[in-house]
Amino acid sequence: MLRSRIARTAMSSTKWQELAKLKRNQLQAAIPKEWTISPRFELNVLGVPSECGVLTPKELEITNESDVSVLLHNLATSKWSSVEVTKAFCKRATIAHQMTNCLTDAFFDTAMKRAAELDDYLQRNGEVVGPLHGLPISLKDQYRVKGLDTPMGYASWIGDVAEDDATVVQILREAGAILYVRTNVPQTLMWTETHNNVYGRTVNPHNRALTPGGSTGGEGALLAMHGSVLGIGTDIGGSSRVPAHFCGIYGFKPSYHRLPFFGAVNSLDGQESIATAVGPMSTSMSGLTILTKTVLESKPWRKDPLALRMPWSSDAYALNEHGGGKHLCFGIMWNDGTLTPHPPVIRALKIAKKAVEEAGHTVIVWSPYRHAELANITRAIWTADGGADYRAALLTVGEPLINSMKPDADPHEVVAHRKHREPLTVYDLWQVHKQKRQLRKEYMDLWNSTASKTETGRPIDALICPPAPYAAVPHGQTRSAGYTMVWNALDYPALIVPVTKVDPSVDVVEPQERFFGQGDETLYKIYDPEVFKDAPVGVQLVTQKQEEEALLAIGKVVDDAVRKLYSTGRAIATTPHSHGPAPPRPAL
Amino acid sequence: MLRSRIARTAMSSTKWQELAKLKRNQLQAAIPKEWTISPRFELNVLGVPSECGVLTPKELEITNESDVSVLLHNLATSKWSSVEVTKAFCKRATIAHQMTNCLTDAFFDTAMKRAAELDDYLQRNGEVVGPLHGLPISLKDQYRVKGLDTPMGYASWIGDVAEDDATVVQILREAGAILYVRTNVPQTLMWTETHNNVYGRTVNPHNRALTPGGSTGGEGALLAMHGSVLGIGTDIGGSSRVPAHFCGIYGFKPSYHRLPFFGAVNSLDGQESIATAVGPMSTSMSGLTILTKTVLESKPWRKDPLALRMPWSSDAYALNEHGGGKHLCFGIMWNDGTLTPHPPVIRALKIAKKAVEEAGHTVIVWSPYRHAELANITRAIWTADGGADYRAALLTVGEPLINSMKPDADPHEVVAHRKHREPLTVYDLWQVHKQKRQLRKEYMDLWNSTASKTETGRPIDALICPPAPYAAVPHGQTRSAGYTMVWNALDYPALIVPVTKVDPSVDVVEPQERFFGQGDETLYKIYDPEVFKDAPVGVQLVTQKQEEEALLAIGKVVDDAVRKLYSTGRAIATTPHSHGPAPPRPAL
Repeated sequence: MLRSRIARTAMSSTKWQELAKLKRNQLQAAIPKEWTISPRFELNVLGVPSECGVLTPKELEITNESDVSVLLHNLATSKWSSVEVTKAFCKRATIAHQMTNCLTDAFFDTAMKRAAELDDYLQRNGEVVGPLHGLPISLKDQYRVKGLDTPMGYASWIGDVAEDDATVVQILREAGAILYVRTNVPQTLMWTETHNNVYGRTVNPHNRALTPGGSTGGEGALLAMHGSVLGIGTDIGGSSRVPAHFCGIYGFKPSYHRLPFFGAVNSLDGQESIATAVGPMSTSMSGLTILTKTVLESKPWRKDPLALRMPWSSDAYALNEHGGGKHLCFGIMWNDGTLTPHPPVIRALKIAKKAVEEAGHTVIVWSPYRHAELANITRAIWTADGGADYRAALLTVGEPLINSMKPDADPHEVVAHRKHREPLTVYDLWQVHKQKRQLRKEYMDLWNSTASKTETGRPIDALICPPAPYAAVPHGQTRSAGYTMVWNALDYPALIVPVTKVDPSVDVVEPQERFFGQGDETLYKIYDPEVFKDAPVGVQLVTQKQEEEALLAIGKVVDDAVRKLYSTGRAIATTPHSHGPAPPRPAL
Repeated sequence: MLRSRIARTAMSSTKWQELAKLKRNQLQAAIPKEWTISPRFELNVLGVPSECGVLTPKELEITNESDVSVLLHNLATSKWSSVEVTKAFCKRATIAHQMTNCLTDAFFDTAMKRAAELDDYLQRNGEVVGPLHGLPISLKDQYRVKGLDTPMGYASWIGDVAEDDATVVQILREAGAILYVRTNVPQTLMWTETHNNVYGRTVNPHNRALTPGGSTGGEGALLAMHGSVLGIGTDIGGSSRVPAHFCGIYGFKPSYHRLPFFGAVNSLDGQESIATAVGPMSTSMSGLTILTKTVLESKPWRKDPLALRMPWSSDAYALNEHGGGKHLCFGIMWNDGTLTPHPPVIRALKIAKKAVEEAGHTVIVWSPYRHAELANITRAIWTADGGADYRAALLTVGEPLINSMKPDADPHEVVAHRKHREPLTVYDLWQVHKQKRQLRKEYMDLWNSTASKTETGRPIDALICPPAPYAAVPHGQTRSAGYTMVWNALDYPALIVPVTKVDPSVDVVEPQERFFGQGDETLYKIYDPEVFKDAPVGVQLVTQKQEEEALLAIGKVVDDAVRKLYSTGRAIATTPHSHGPAPPRPAL
């Protein structure tokens, strides 16, 4: 699993630009010419796969299916062969890439070969090889795949070929999944946008003037275009959730070490204070749940030395500690006390609140508790090396550090979170850890203390809160990921459920009388309904530490409630992954 | 829970010697005069409680009981009242303290008051308040108790009174336990001996020329004299296991965050790379098991933000993943490839091997894998602050750092592990973490690969290995805790089962032809049967990460097998906590 030192030495004398070109050419060569289409100039390109003529009607039928459980059922029952499904997603991923620049690798030949093997297996044996039989699954460019390099956006890592799959990749293969593409990331990973010197920028297919988010932005764009229905991202501060929110899909951040991250490459590698989580992303709740259950049932602790020995719990998924899910009590957090959410984000919260209330649940207000301090602690940890990790990855090939994600950035402009910080000593870090532990204790006690307010006898079952203060912003305009990173600091699982889209006819500018500070006011005022048009908006759901099963079950409760509200025409929005006509839009 | 800043400021102008005297006087004042006895001069003082006349015959009967489950049964059935049991242990702890200097605090009045309340509760309600009803439990001087200071051997921490109990202390109280004493530790905790400037040195009651080990040495000495049957220590590198081995009792180190450590004071506080474990110690396997089960059934993750959401598993305790415990296959590791165990340690391994084989299990050889590197990584982490943590605790009151535990140490002599190291940057630490992760992966894969050798279809169910290369050594002679600390680095649970005692008639010097190096040879040659006479010897059992329940069950299997071997007169030894005549001693 160690990087090939021979390969690195050979590379170090090559210019980073040449390495990057080599890699881009490799991707280009992997894409069949007959699947390429003419350039398009519209901002919203979601309709392109249906219109471009590359996919057959059956391939469109297959790839339009959002529900992963339906796809798996159709594969397991041979309604659709894996070869058919794989080819359809290879084609659609290629269209998505041409519209958004979301891919870093395509290995369609090996995917098709494996699909044929799986079809053969099913035909011969009358049973599937595993719970993900025949399903194409996309991977963020952090998950090592045997025989491939994993540049993660760094030129210096190009050519460093893996001898083994990352643990989660091994498990996916054993469960019958088809690997076919990997997807783009930002340089250093520590951004909620997606742009690097090797592959360039990924854009949001709902509105290409906007970012798909990051760091798992390639997955976000790919999934939004149904070039995949299930992708494996990562999340250390919002990297699976921000792209899910920005791209109108489902995204999940489990607790530390619940899903196996061993064998993936990473930024700040070796940092243990806030562990990177494997972050599944999908076009459906069923996708997240099936993926999580499959990985946990494979006993990942036998493969990843850091993975928790916590099998999938059917009891927890049945919400046995949450009254069986019959009458849940949610907390709702309207803002985090530092940044005021834009109007469409507030509207998504209102829709979710109305939906769960109509489904028989209750909602009480949750006041944010020291979120600014939690975010500060998180940033102190991420920058504790003073940037040494980034420099080590860039220096060998002279690749420049990206200091701003703005397309027209002044090269000397450095965004706030990228400004140089002095490194900490280990003793300093230990003092930060003590603050973190104390805040975690206080947050937990506060959560548990709500048992006196919920009328269920339990603390709130989950929290509903914004995934970010904004929907997808124009490139280069993202700020702190405070709304997502606090849950990484607290180690609470968190989930994004898509709810609506920015609609200029309802999401008008709403002047605020007070702000949390100048930065808040400035950020609030970037909201312009025409600029954010079509940007999806989700809500974030959070449960207590290591309640992954309960959160997935509650995610289904909320998702079903929201969809039901739409089906009865009682919410303001188009469903973000609807491919049919928009439902009626009464005022909320 | 924060230290009282007012108290600290007032203290900082007081000399450390005066603070220490104040604290020692406080302890002295808490001990009733009628329980004090004349000084004794023999090395082995295990018989003193029976002979000194302080305890009544019934108090001796109560405190001679090693089996915690029997004590709890007798309490729950009112055969013995909690007042009787508590008074008996208060008396015996006082005798133990006079012989070994094991206590730091005695709070007998509040203990007796609580015992009376519990007796009253049981009488009125006909049921116990919890699974530990009426049982006195001793605490290492790291566990905060509301209303008390917790100096942990540092003068500067004297007077810093806790506003809350540590989490595990809360849980013990709720389960019905009686708190009555706290016990001594080494300055800085990072020693496997027990001596500090505040309370002085604790000695081993089996042979007072020897150390009881550390850092939970006060518990070790107290439990060896049956001044307690269940104590709560801690373990970051062997701190509960080395004293258990040296003192002839049972000691347990669970995986990181399985038992709740929140609210305890600590050395290197905030260090997260190798987490300190709550380390139960007992005169019986039942003590460790009941304690662990009780704490886990109290849902500690609702109280400690770092505690894992992993309830007690009856399935795991039934060894369902280990063939029901019928035909286990053990690995046996005769040495760790760095230090050659002394003859009595090898004899203990042979007894354990013979015992489990006669009980129908099999044993295969385990070769140590990169233990020296694991130990080096652990040391690098512990010293990553360059000693800043120790200095912060000592400087305010000018207390000197102890550099050697030798009674006649040259003040300028600094033992190897206490020599100054330059602090690491956080980036350096991250690189150490990467090495640790890689070694954990390789160790796990090696363990799992034994499935091809065991004939059970499973990997080895547990490892049997030495707890240290020696039995209890003369004061100041302990070396690296490599035999225990590797399991902290790997996060594998580990357990000490007492097996025998050093017997000069059988544990003769056995010259070795080869050594692992000069340090090994030097250490091996300190073995002298007359010097180590009466020192207990245990074996260490290890399972894979987060297999606490399985390890406790396997500990019972081994313990029962060893006791059976003794009962049939087929092992060379006296049982370490036998109070009757020694069994016959055939050659092994």
